[in-house]
Amino acid sequence: MAYLNENYLKLQAGYLFPEMARRVREFCEANPKAAERLIRCGIGDVTEPLPRAAIEAMKRAVEELGDHETFRGYGPEQGYEFLRSAIAQNDYRGRNIEIADDEIFISDGSKCDCGYILDILGDQNKVAVPDPVYPVYVDTNVMAGHTGHSGKDGSYEGIVYLPCTAENSFVPDPPKEHVDLVYLCFPNNPTGAVASRGQLAQWVEYAHAHEAILLFDAAYEAYINDDPHVNPLPGQGEADAKRQARVESKIPHSIFEIPGARECAIELRSFSKSGGFTGVRCGFTVMPKSVLAQTENGRRLPLHPLWQRRWSTKSNSVSYPVQRGAEALYSHEGRKQVRALIDHYMGNAKLLRDAVSDAQLEAFGGVNAPYIWVKTPDGLTSWQMFDQILRELNVVITPGAGFGAQGEGHFRISAFNSRENAEEVARRLKKLR
Amino acid sequence: MAYLNENYLKLQAGYLFPEMARRVREFCEANPKAAERLIRCGIGDVTEPLPRAAIEAMKRAVEELGDHETFRGYGPEQGYEFLRSAIAQNDYRGRNIEIADDEIFISDGSKCDCGYILDILGDQNKVAVPDPVYPVYVDTNVMAGHTGHSGKDGSYEGIVYLPCTAENSFVPDPPKEHVDLVYLCFPNNPTGAVASRGQLAQWVEYAHAHEAILLFDAAYEAYINDDPHVNPLPGQGEADAKRQARVESKIPHSIFEIPGARECAIELRSFSKSGGFTGVRCGFTVMPKSVLAQTENGRRLPLHPLWQRRWSTKSNSVSYPVQRGAEALYSHEGRKQVRALIDHYMGNAKLLRDAVSDAQLEAFGGVNAPYIWVKTPDGLTSWQMFDQILRELNVVITPGAGFGAQGEGHFRISAFNSRENAEEVARRLKKLR
Repeated sequence: MAYLNENYLKLQAGYLFPEMARRVREFCEANPKAAERLIRCGIGDVTEPLPRAAIEAMKRAVEELGDHETFRGYGPEQGYEFLRSAIAQNDYRGRNIEIADDEIFISDGSKCDCGYILDILGDQNKVAVPDPVYPVYVDTNVMAGHTGHSGKDGSYEGIVYLPCTAENSFVPDPPKEHVDLVYLCFPNNPTGAVASRGQLAQWVEYAHAHEAILLFDAAYEAYINDDPHVNPLPGQGEADAKRQARVESKIPHSIFEIPGARECAIELRSFSKSGGFTGVRCGFTVMPKSVLAQTENGRRLPLHPLWQRRWSTKSNSVSYPVQRGAEALYSHEGRKQVRALIDHYMGNAKLLRDAVSDAQLEAFGGVNAPYIWVKTPDGLTSWQMFDQILRELNVVITPGAGFGAQGEGHFRISAFNSRENAEEVARRLKKLR
Repeated sequence: MAYLNENYLKLQAGYLFPEMARRVREFCEANPKAAERLIRCGIGDVTEPLPRAAIEAMKRAVEELGDHETFRGYGPEQGYEFLRSAIAQNDYRGRNIEIADDEIFISDGSKCDCGYILDILGDQNKVAVPDPVYPVYVDTNVMAGHTGHSGKDGSYEGIVYLPCTAENSFVPDPPKEHVDLVYLCFPNNPTGAVASRGQLAQWVEYAHAHEAILLFDAAYEAYINDDPHVNPLPGQGEADAKRQARVESKIPHSIFEIPGARECAIELRSFSKSGGFTGVRCGFTVMPKSVLAQTENGRRLPLHPLWQRRWSTKSNSVSYPVQRGAEALYSHEGRKQVRALIDHYMGNAKLLRDAVSDAQLEAFGGVNAPYIWVKTPDGLTSWQMFDQILRELNVVITPGAGFGAQGEGHFRISAFNSRENAEEVARRLKKLR
């Protein structure tokens, strides 16, 4: 009889968001009046319309497919040159980071890339993840057979967990032990923390010493708040001054801002949270040609040709209109519209963070990321807090325990909302105490 | 040091289409005049504009994402209910095949699904593939470590190859030995062959006897030519008569037309060749809840929950506008436009097949599939024939050897082209002898 991949059976059944949905549903059924004023700040999904530049570009691209002269069939499996080049130029080379067009691989989203990347890596790798963590890093490794079973606190045997706590400002130090593959995510989901240049340099140093690979998830890089106050030099335009400010910013947008990272890091990025593409689906991986890994008998080979082959064999890339939509985010208009979107969400984040502080709760994040990470009061568990906020404020938040053992005693508030909802949630949060 | 997946190193370097591209490029550089009249009938990519219904639906959907009231973020990971339901209803239940909406899983294409499906299956499975074969079935198994190395003829140790030859009309019989997983593709790429109800019933019987799983690739089902002459009964509309004719057709469109298939088959389908979606990217898998597989210690479990989980963890489904475009292919206008597209390509296929016959070559396929499979004359190898047709006719075809050892001595002509090009290729082909 055919066999199934029984690593799937190790996965914990009660995935975070379905369990939240169940509790919300039961509450709403029992409390129809409260249900009417329910506001969701749980899941990290955008709420605002797409930038107009992306809309127009996608509509034009769709129309091209309806015309004999401009019709396109299969595109290049790794993505169209126009988009790879726009990304490499704008996100990297324009910021003095050496990345070639053909080191950019277009995908249908960062979540997908998290799974795809394991295709080309060996099963022998020792894997480290932050705790708390985006559950997909862990679950894809469970599915690939890289872990044992999970314990009572939800952590899996065989994975090295890197505690992220208030003590280390939610940025873990490299471990004492050897690992081969490390997932890092900054700005962080769920804690909203960012890593400084010095902290990332420590990780690059660790990766070189251990010949490890860093999987750097920069899905929220656009939320780094590094040009709020710009004073152009005499004769310098504001745009130039801003660019300069960003280059010199203390908080790196990319792991490749750190010297040596081209030899040890792979970066994942997404248009989901910058361009509001959660339903449009587009992201990319940066795979430098200089990242090597080894075979069982010690041959050292670059990963880039394997990644190139993975895309050739397993994909026909991303929808053409979607790639045109992503390209448009880099246009002059597109950038302004993306900036306005992010300013909107970060305005919400400030309101929410201030409200939590007013309620005398200890809050983190929300400055360079659209998430506020809050310590529960009075030793409440995160699910107790979830239930209390649902019941008393009719607001849905995300219990920290869903992100890992170290998430216990915390909850996450998402700033993805309309301003009206964010203001109302802020008003309600102030009543928490 | 981090390990790579060294199964990738077993893959043959000279993949078919890049090698064809290299030879065409060299020829064109050396013969610029001939290059001007070059016509490509190699790769199986559509050439005609998208159905207008899909264009309009996608543009509307894009516009929805630009409006606060109609904006959508993350969709259901397994695909929107509107599309799953349109598929299940139109392709299955409307044709008396029992498939539930939640047994349909929307994907970014059949090629992708070929890789994804191995995620949930065990590495212990013994795999059988037809020969010649769509290379992706084999290469994804090589990448997953399900094979040994390849021999001189390109076949891999550990895979059971099922020869498809003129003797068996390119429809293989089930093997004598036990296998766990069988790839079948009808209408076939590259041979253009179709399997009868009786032949598929033999495969379902084999699968039941061996508790094997059939992976049935029906990407070309829309090309089955089963309603050319319809005589409506008195009082019956033409549409009803056509539907009746299709239900009773000798050539099944779906493996699920065969009794017992719901217990042993998974079907892959695509909008690439029906709606011309090669650059738009959308397909689907049909995963019946009744297909079981086993764990190492013999527990029998349905695959459906694993597949459901695979999508939840590793994907956020397909772009919303793309799903709306696919849905529109099922509208009244959409169906007519798809039919016209297919009639166009099948008109080309008839021209090309007739031309090959006029040239006294033995030709197969081209009746229920957009591919004509031709025996090379005079014992020429398929690459010799490729070079000769390129040199003498300035036409690009696909050498059969690229699809497997049994493809040697054959070549494939694709009918995906403009009518003008197809007519010109037909004229040139007649000069082959």
